[in-house]
Amino acid sequence: MARAEALAGPLRALLGERGLSADPDELAPLLVEPRGLYRGATPFVARPATTEQVAAVVRLCREAGVAIVPQGGNTGLCGGAMPAEDGSQLLVSLGRMNRIRELDALNYTMTVEAGCILQHVQAAAADADRLFPLSLGAEGSCTVGGNISTNAGGINTLRYGNMRELVLGLEAVLPDGRVWNGLRRLRKDNTGYDLKQLFIGGEGTLGIVTAACVKLFPRPREEVTAFAALPSIPDVIELLSRLRAATGDQVSAFEYIGRFGIDLALRHVPGVRDPFDRAYTHYALLRADAGREGSGLREIVEEALGQAFEDGLVLDATIADSGAQANALWRIREAVVEAQIPEGGSIKHDVSVPVSRVADFIEAADEAVERTIPGARPCPFGHVGDGNIHYNVSQPVGADKEAYLARWDELNAAVHDIVNGLDGSVSAEHGVGRLKVEEITHYKPGPEIEMMRAVKRALDPDGLMNPGKVVA
Amino acid sequence: MARAEALAGPLRALLGERGLSADPDELAPLLVEPRGLYRGATPFVARPATTEQVAAVVRLCREAGVAIVPQGGNTGLCGGAMPAEDGSQLLVSLGRMNRIRELDALNYTMTVEAGCILQHVQAAAADADRLFPLSLGAEGSCTVGGNISTNAGGINTLRYGNMRELVLGLEAVLPDGRVWNGLRRLRKDNTGYDLKQLFIGGEGTLGIVTAACVKLFPRPREEVTAFAALPSIPDVIELLSRLRAATGDQVSAFEYIGRFGIDLALRHVPGVRDPFDRAYTHYALLRADAGREGSGLREIVEEALGQAFEDGLVLDATIADSGAQANALWRIREAVVEAQIPEGGSIKHDVSVPVSRVADFIEAADEAVERTIPGARPCPFGHVGDGNIHYNVSQPVGADKEAYLARWDELNAAVHDIVNGLDGSVSAEHGVGRLKVEEITHYKPGPEIEMMRAVKRALDPDGLMNPGKVVA
Repeated sequence: MARAEALAGPLRALLGERGLSADPDELAPLLVEPRGLYRGATPFVARPATTEQVAAVVRLCREAGVAIVPQGGNTGLCGGAMPAEDGSQLLVSLGRMNRIRELDALNYTMTVEAGCILQHVQAAAADADRLFPLSLGAEGSCTVGGNISTNAGGINTLRYGNMRELVLGLEAVLPDGRVWNGLRRLRKDNTGYDLKQLFIGGEGTLGIVTAACVKLFPRPREEVTAFAALPSIPDVIELLSRLRAATGDQVSAFEYIGRFGIDLALRHVPGVRDPFDRAYTHYALLRADAGREGSGLREIVEEALGQAFEDGLVLDATIADSGAQANALWRIREAVVEAQIPEGGSIKHDVSVPVSRVADFIEAADEAVERTIPGARPCPFGHVGDGNIHYNVSQPVGADKEAYLARWDELNAAVHDIVNGLDGSVSAEHGVGRLKVEEITHYKPGPEIEMMRAVKRALDPDGLMNPGKVVA
Repeated sequence: MARAEALAGPLRALLGERGLSADPDELAPLLVEPRGLYRGATPFVARPATTEQVAAVVRLCREAGVAIVPQGGNTGLCGGAMPAEDGSQLLVSLGRMNRIRELDALNYTMTVEAGCILQHVQAAAADADRLFPLSLGAEGSCTVGGNISTNAGGINTLRYGNMRELVLGLEAVLPDGRVWNGLRRLRKDNTGYDLKQLFIGGEGTLGIVTAACVKLFPRPREEVTAFAALPSIPDVIELLSRLRAATGDQVSAFEYIGRFGIDLALRHVPGVRDPFDRAYTHYALLRADAGREGSGLREIVEEALGQAFEDGLVLDATIADSGAQANALWRIREAVVEAQIPEGGSIKHDVSVPVSRVADFIEAADEAVERTIPGARPCPFGHVGDGNIHYNVSQPVGADKEAYLARWDELNAAVHDIVNGLDGSVSAEHGVGRLKVEEITHYKPGPEIEMMRAVKRALDPDGLMNPGKVVA
């Protein structure tokens, strides 16, 4: 395969000074995966500012036989946006394509370019008295193009769906350098194969998403945030089911946190306070949204929690009385993530199982961890409303970090076998990238892997779009 | 291409007496499209009872080079389930695969076989105190497999999405006769290309869907149905937008009916009564659902309609006081469909545009109709909440029916050009089948048609799965 260097001249002629950079300081943050799992190399980063420039870059690369790695905010956790170590591939950053092209409040849609930061999209929707519901930890720096290419999830999936459910239409540059204008703004369109679905979650392996039309929703007028302590994980799931029914499906987020996560947050993150005066084993953090003021939603949540308390399902609970209190409760959830760092090495799993099997999963995984690496400390938390658990495992106290992390694949295999046995997914929301190519090939049914390869060959016959990611 | 007759012996050996029929009386209703647009032929219909039997049938056909046409309830309106007129293709009916394999109330999912009647699926969900929201006119006879293969829409799409949004996993028999078990029950699964999306809306051209796992929802406890008269179509759209916001997105259905439709319903359908004491030009029929009793939803709808009345947006409105009254209002909507038949020939369009452009569409389409066939009478109605209008045009009074219907393509072209100019879809919910293959080839961007063909070639290289449908 040809090397990207050869294209310096024509790329600079095409994109101008701002459109191409070989500055090592500028390149450095683009060439390391956020957890440090992967480092890539590239002679320069191309920064096209328009769809036409993206198309011209792709045509240049195609003629020269140079592979392309598209990148948004570089917040992905599977190495999907990292070019190869040998420096042969061209990194294409979509960051300059950051215009909101149109907001149609009456149609409840917005058309945005791939490089728009998620938080800016949320803000633009709010300015028009609308909600764009996708919300996740990296929202201040991740881009919509990356959210689409990885089918981002986050905390509001329970009510509003993943990115896949939020996209109505796409614009993409195809591997042959042509622009596909599939920017539809329609709720119903049954005119053949829904090709945008291949690009959503396709991680740039079939083309480069340059813009999208996304759904908006009425902006919620009331939010109720509650934190509850529960005796067991089946009780957590039962509480979720009851609250979905009691509120008429207005639960927008439902997170699980185990005691170990709370302990870490209290230990390492200043300002985090235990919501209760004693320790419990299992916690749920939830938010319900009402579309109107005076909805009575708080009373409904209160009543459902009260009934659950009487039934022994809930041991203690608190409902936020103000926005500040709600933020403090959500701050606990965020703190769980950062508090794992000072505890040493952490081996991660982003998995999902049917909601009804979450308890079975955690029980079996805890046993497997203890069997594989005695003393390792599971810190399960996450979007249990979607059956999505971030099953992170901190190293045993006092263990050697490098030696512990060297057992990453071994522990992954033990946990992922359990997930697979429960009809779950070994990548719930982070995608495949480079990290999980072998694993999905191992776990997915043969015909499915073969269909994936057939689709890749059919749409990217030269294999120049983000090679080595998603499909081997 | 080989002919299906040759397989009589092996098919009977495989499927037994109940599994193969050449009885002309049994075949007759399977070989005519419901509107009579297409008639097909086949030496017999295969009725496999299990996924393994479907797979064995596909393998037999593949070895013999015989093309296959899968069929569910034969309620599709584009000829997608009709075999060719020359009798060479094998009709495969999924009707005997009608088991509900599993209902997981805690996971809010149900796994059903392709031949399940939609109404039975709705009923099974209700029995478990859950809602399966897909609802459409043919629900008493259409099957889930057909709903999936055509990405069915219907009246609840506004709130719950099309069939595409309701499917979590699929089981399908691939063109090579292997079974793909993709029956996942997960809310989050980012492990590569989401291949089920190609089968949803794929109309059997890439394989035969044999089972699916679908999402369930909490069962609504209160329903509010209202009928309103409005001065203009922009007012209809504005009312929809206001009600979405006021109810917190609890509007589950929002239908438009023009006066001509009401007139026809009153004239031809016994028992239909005008909800108001004078005639208006435009009407909206809507339903909002609340997940719990004592929701106050009726008061919210009442207040929003009252405010709209004060603002001149609504001229008159009635809210159903009972289930019987609600049924009577919905009966008007159903009557509009059947009342077109005694008016003679009707040229149909199942189109969608962005919700904000519905008024532009109807105005331009009405002008085009009058220009093309003076005196022809547009009867626009349908799911305006999704921008989906069933723009049917009744023949001029006293015109010759056959001569009028002979101008079907000409009128379609005029109306579809307008739809296309408004970034709309020429098949909102009925699919492509045989009816619209040429039209989508005409209107879709070239790269999209080429990608569709590439996908078809990649997954069905021998072209034996429902040939001639969807992709030319």
